[in-house]
Amino acid sequence: MRGVAALARRSVRSDTGRFLVEGPQAVRELIRYAAPSVVDVYVTPDGRARHAEIYSAAYAAGCFVHDVTDEVLAAMADADTPQGMVAVAQQPVVGLADVLDGARLLVLLHEVRDPGNLGTVIRGADATGADAVLVTANSVDAFSPKVIRSGAGSHFHVPVVSRLDVEATLAALGERGIRTLATQGDAPLALPDADLTGPHAWVLGNEAHGLPDAVAAACDERVAIPIYGAAESLNLAMAATVCLYASAFARRG
Amino acid sequence: MRGVAALARRSVRSDTGRFLVEGPQAVRELIRYAAPSVVDVYVTPDGRARHAEIYSAAYAAGCFVHDVTDEVLAAMADADTPQGMVAVAQQPVVGLADVLDGARLLVLLHEVRDPGNLGTVIRGADATGADAVLVTANSVDAFSPKVIRSGAGSHFHVPVVSRLDVEATLAALGERGIRTLATQGDAPLALPDADLTGPHAWVLGNEAHGLPDAVAAACDERVAIPIYGAAESLNLAMAATVCLYASAFARRG
Repeated sequence: MRGVAALARRSVRSDTGRFLVEGPQAVRELIRYAAPSVVDVYVTPDGRARHAEIYSAAYAAGCFVHDVTDEVLAAMADADTPQGMVAVAQQPVVGLADVLDGARLLVLLHEVRDPGNLGTVIRGADATGADAVLVTANSVDAFSPKVIRSGAGSHFHVPVVSRLDVEATLAALGERGIRTLATQGDAPLALPDADLTGPHAWVLGNEAHGLPDAVAAACDERVAIPIYGAAESLNLAMAATVCLYASAFARRG
Repeated sequence: MRGVAALARRSVRSDTGRFLVEGPQAVRELIRYAAPSVVDVYVTPDGRARHAEIYSAAYAAGCFVHDVTDEVLAAMADADTPQGMVAVAQQPVVGLADVLDGARLLVLLHEVRDPGNLGTVIRGADATGADAVLVTANSVDAFSPKVIRSGAGSHFHVPVVSRLDVEATLAALGERGIRTLATQGDAPLALPDADLTGPHAWVLGNEAHGLPDAVAAACDERVAIPIYGAAESLNLAMAATVCLYASAFARRG
C-alpha cells in the first residue's frame, strides 16, 4: 500500500516501471486493452458493488484483485476521489520505431509541462484516431497520476512515446515521409488552408513559450490556428484537439 | 484585504457583485476592455517592475492602484501564484436580450460544473469570435477565481450571461432565428455534415451526464462529434472548442 502511494513520485515510477491508474473508467480501459500489464487491482466494497462488471473483468483477465477499505484506498490514491478503484500497472515499453510504420496522424509535444494538458491531448489523439502521441524529454511524465486521470483511459488506446529528442524525432518523421506541421500563432499558413490529406504530425510547444524557433524552422510547415476574437491564444490542449480534428475531418473528406 | 480574499466565496461575489482577477494577463485585459468596472488594483514591487505597462495603463485609466507586499498579495489571492498582481472588479450586468441582436455564433452550457471547463469554453468562444457564452442556473459561477483564471482574459472580450433558464433560453434563441444545435455522442448527424452557415448556438451539457434528453429534444438539431478511436468521449471544453471552430471555419468558407 505504501508502495502504491509512492507511485505518485516520478522517481518511483521510473525505478519500478509501474504507474497508478485511478477510478473505474481508467481501470476498465486498462483491463480491457492492457490486461497483461496489470500488477494489482484494489477495490473498495462500494467500488465492487457499483462496478461489478469491472471487478468481474479483472478476475476473468487473471488480475490480482484486492479488497480494501475506503481508508486504505484513499491512502494509496493520488486523486481526492479515486471512486472505489485503483490499479497498478507496468508501463508499456514503446519506442518511436514501433509506432511510425504506416502512421498517418501523429502529435508531437515539445516540453509540455501541465499534466492536464498532456492527458487531454492523449484523449484528443485517441478521439481523432491518431496513431501515437510523441513527447520530448523535459516534459511532464506521461504516466503521472494527473496525466492518467485527464487521459480518461486513452493511454490504453493510443501509444505514448516519451523522452524523445526533438531533432532526432523530426528527422525520423521526415525519413518516413510524415510531414511535420509546427503550430505557431504567427505562422503564415492558416489551419483551414493547410493540406492535411497525407501522413503528418502536429508539433506543439510548451504552454508558456510555444515552440522554439529552431524547432519550428526544422518542421516542414508552420501553421496558425486563426484567432477570430480578442483572445491571445488557445491553451495547448485545445490547440492540439482543434488541429487533430481538422486532420481527421480532412482525411475523411 | 480580507474583503478581497473573501471574493473566493460565491456568496460574497453574489452579495457584492464584485470578483477577483488574478495575474498580469487577466488584469491587463480587464483594464484594456473593462476599465470602468475596476474597483482596485493591487501590485507587488516585483509585479510593478515586470509589468510596468500594465501599471501605467491602470493609472492612465484612473484605477485605484495599491502597492502591496508579496505576503499581502498572497493573502488576497486565490491562485497559488498570482504573479504580482490582482484586481477587484464589478461584475458586468448583462442579460440575454443584450447579446442576441445580430448574434451569429453562441454557446450555451447547461449545468457545467468544472471551473476549468467553463473558463476554457469562454476562452474558446473568444478565440472563435463567438458573440456570447450563455450559462444556465445550477452551473459553476462564471466569475469564480478559477473560471477567471482559465478564461485567460476572455471574460473581458466576450459577454457571459449566467443563471439562465434553459427552456426560456432555447425559446428566445428560436424567436431570433438562431438555430440550436445540441451535442450528443449518439446523435444521428455528424459534425462535418452539419450546416453551420446560418446563426446558431451550440448547446452542451454537464460533464458527467451530458444534456438531458428533454433539452436535446427541444433543440433544432442533435449533432455528434465523431470519435474515430476508442475514446469514450471528449471533455466538455474540447467538445465546445471543436464545435466552435467548425462554425468559425464554415462561416468563412
